[in-house]
Amino acid sequence: MTTAGNEKSDKLKTAKDDDFFEWYNDIVIKANLCDNRYPIKGMNVWTPYGWKLMRQIDAFIRREMDATDHEEVCFPLLIPETEFKKEKDHIKGFDEEVYWVTHAGLNPLDIRLVVRPTSETAMYPMFSLWVRSHQDLPLKIFQIVNTFRYETKQTRAFMRVREIHFFESHTCHADREDAERQVKQDIEIVDAVCRELCIPHSFLIRTDWDKFPGAFYTVGIDTIMPDGRTLQIGSAHYYSTNFSKPYNITYEKENGEHEYVHQTTLGMTERLLGAVVGIHGDNSGLVLPPAIAPVQAVIIPIFKKDNEAEVMQVCRAAEAALASAGIRAKLDDSDGRPGAKFYVWELKGVPLRLEIGGKDIENGVATFARRDTGAKGTVELESIGQGVRMMLDIIASDMMKSAEEKQKGFIDDFSDMSAESIPEGRIVRIGWCGSPECGHKFEDKYDMKILGTPYRPEEWKGRCVCCGKEGCGPAYAARTL
Amino acid sequence: MTTAGNEKSDKLKTAKDDDFFEWYNDIVIKANLCDNRYPIKGMNVWTPYGWKLMRQIDAFIRREMDATDHEEVCFPLLIPETEFKKEKDHIKGFDEEVYWVTHAGLNPLDIRLVVRPTSETAMYPMFSLWVRSHQDLPLKIFQIVNTFRYETKQTRAFMRVREIHFFESHTCHADREDAERQVKQDIEIVDAVCRELCIPHSFLIRTDWDKFPGAFYTVGIDTIMPDGRTLQIGSAHYYSTNFSKPYNITYEKENGEHEYVHQTTLGMTERLLGAVVGIHGDNSGLVLPPAIAPVQAVIIPIFKKDNEAEVMQVCRAAEAALASAGIRAKLDDSDGRPGAKFYVWELKGVPLRLEIGGKDIENGVATFARRDTGAKGTVELESIGQGVRMMLDIIASDMMKSAEEKQKGFIDDFSDMSAESIPEGRIVRIGWCGSPECGHKFEDKYDMKILGTPYRPEEWKGRCVCCGKEGCGPAYAARTL
Repeated sequence: MTTAGNEKSDKLKTAKDDDFFEWYNDIVIKANLCDNRYPIKGMNVWTPYGWKLMRQIDAFIRREMDATDHEEVCFPLLIPETEFKKEKDHIKGFDEEVYWVTHAGLNPLDIRLVVRPTSETAMYPMFSLWVRSHQDLPLKIFQIVNTFRYETKQTRAFMRVREIHFFESHTCHADREDAERQVKQDIEIVDAVCRELCIPHSFLIRTDWDKFPGAFYTVGIDTIMPDGRTLQIGSAHYYSTNFSKPYNITYEKENGEHEYVHQTTLGMTERLLGAVVGIHGDNSGLVLPPAIAPVQAVIIPIFKKDNEAEVMQVCRAAEAALASAGIRAKLDDSDGRPGAKFYVWELKGVPLRLEIGGKDIENGVATFARRDTGAKGTVELESIGQGVRMMLDIIASDMMKSAEEKQKGFIDDFSDMSAESIPEGRIVRIGWCGSPECGHKFEDKYDMKILGTPYRPEEWKGRCVCCGKEGCGPAYAARTL
Repeated sequence: MTTAGNEKSDKLKTAKDDDFFEWYNDIVIKANLCDNRYPIKGMNVWTPYGWKLMRQIDAFIRREMDATDHEEVCFPLLIPETEFKKEKDHIKGFDEEVYWVTHAGLNPLDIRLVVRPTSETAMYPMFSLWVRSHQDLPLKIFQIVNTFRYETKQTRAFMRVREIHFFESHTCHADREDAERQVKQDIEIVDAVCRELCIPHSFLIRTDWDKFPGAFYTVGIDTIMPDGRTLQIGSAHYYSTNFSKPYNITYEKENGEHEYVHQTTLGMTERLLGAVVGIHGDNSGLVLPPAIAPVQAVIIPIFKKDNEAEVMQVCRAAEAALASAGIRAKLDDSDGRPGAKFYVWELKGVPLRLEIGGKDIENGVATFARRDTGAKGTVELESIGQGVRMMLDIIASDMMKSAEEKQKGFIDDFSDMSAESIPEGRIVRIGWCGSPECGHKFEDKYDMKILGTPYRPEEWKGRCVCCGKEGCGPAYAARTL
């Protein structure tokens, strides 16, 4: 039986440090995370391995949603043009990016339908029916669906695609205070999901000219790619009453007055998987965080003709012991030489490889090799479940630490606008007075984007990089993906 | 906090036996399975309770897919017109039913895109890349996605909608024999899923004029609604090489020759949920099969002022005991009178209600009421996990038996075409020589559809109802939804 997709056993063509994007494009295909040969540009096929990883990420998101009393729903894909156009900034922001359904069967439709680029305009007409009184608040729902944007920039698997695997939560609250409490909770939810993926990330309040169309403010969630560019992996928004007014979402207070609800959303996409691939992978292939690895530990039997039966028996026992310890383990009992098997499982990013041969059995151990560092050692066969669990925890913790250190290394403080340029691949912290004039001047001169100001306050104060005003808080600026 | 959707505490307006469809339309809204007020006809919002049920059904499908070595994938929603039009019967079958994306942003697309009505034409161009040699076979994949058909008939929640929650598996095989083995396996998969839902069902090879566009033959999977009409809940197809030829899906045999693959598909939809609602529900609301009930047993505390603390303590202990026995139990500790709580949980279809009051505690029992039959009794508190598990198993088995008996009651043998009509709500077994002439003559005279001939052979033989030829096998005919 085949594995659907375009799996190949060729080596990666490019070293990660030589050309990050060539390496990235190559690895998503070689590790068979998706197939990019579908006849529409930017719409890729999720092949089994990639889809398994994405579904595991979704499972973490659902876990966090459950724990915070969000209910899962599923809204229609298509949105009537009339509903879509109710919030003016929103439609302006998406005007050039949406796909339109104009015909059904052989006939044109009376009202054109938008293929959802996000679901505000699908959901909010219903929210106006669902929310009646203060007792209906907060309303907290989420869905995991596909969304569509007509990208004109170069597409790239998981990072910039035209059909996007998308998570979105939407909430309604009685007042701003409660809504902003929700944004805080959203930030914690993102922390929890990113922890499982060993993805360092920052929360920055976007500039006014870069916020989500229709938002009061936007908190961008960014991580840093190995080339020093930032990747937005999600965003949380406080909408104030910007949508509840055009969509007429009101509630009756205890005193009988009617008020518009305050709304928030949180969104994350398949970019989470792109970030995992880009941040952790190396020249031998994927390096998967233990929490999402479909196979967390692979067992490779090492035998000669005279001890095959014994080795296989010990391997099978080890596999069973790992399974009963709740570890996703796989015994690779296929034909083929151990070296060839090592190669394949490295490419697939399995966090821990266990080799069991005659010598190991004599010593009552399995030899392990960590995928992240290559370090080798042994675990006792007798307590293999416990030993492997501990190793996986260490691997996860080390992957996070190592990624955090790398990402910190990209950031410089920058205060002198007489400098002619800021090198490619560098991210800067600047003092910023917050004025659009200073912001634009900086962005234009260095061809960088101000990502925003810290959502979680930082101690740092300095002069505005542009106008020199003193006592300004920090902002971060980068080149983005 | 509210429950998203249009939950109401009104009673059902119509008795199931008085007008099945009025009752059905009412119950899906009152039990809050979906919201049909979305501004596009036939595209409903999955509200939390309905979505939970559907996701549980999906989980059973995934379990069966895993057990039979199908791998999960996810293909793009949109299909270029050029690919869509490669198989002629297929496109003819869907021509009047598909939605077309014609514009992106402000501009018309060069090639129009079909919003998938099913995924043959999305998948098979990729299959032709994936399948190379006999070692790649069988290829077995599946996906759970939304599909779209521009229904012109009256829409009805879960039964006839324009955005359809859809499961589809697709396989490629070296020859007809292996492909037909797959169809057999598909039938067993459907059996296993329907067993969990307590849905009686039949497998009938559709007539040639009613098979899936492009199929060599189609096995329709039908169940019977309380009004005697049949509902197709799924279908399995053997495509022969009808698609592999236009899409050029070939493999190299061991002897070096190239052959077209033989293909099959299996599809099931949200109609499974519609069938659960329609078959099992009653005048008090849903009656959920234990396997899919989000709450399998609800505990209602019955206390007076002087024993509230004690009763609540016993209830909490019972809830914990049920949870640790793997039962989805919920203690309803909300304010409100027990009677009002009974009403709500009956509407939601919870299979087993447990009441625990002072007397029950004295006797060391909980009083139960079955949702399906209304029967009451007691279970020992000490072994409540075991007791409730047994009750749930009995309920499931009785629900299936009772549904099977009801459905058998709709079927008559019919052999005399001098009869002027066949009453509404009756299904007939006829002898049929298999000729289209006889088939059409029967269908036209009685305004019924021949559903097909048994996939699993029946002993029965008789004269063709039309031409009188002897020794013909049976066919079933019905009015369909």
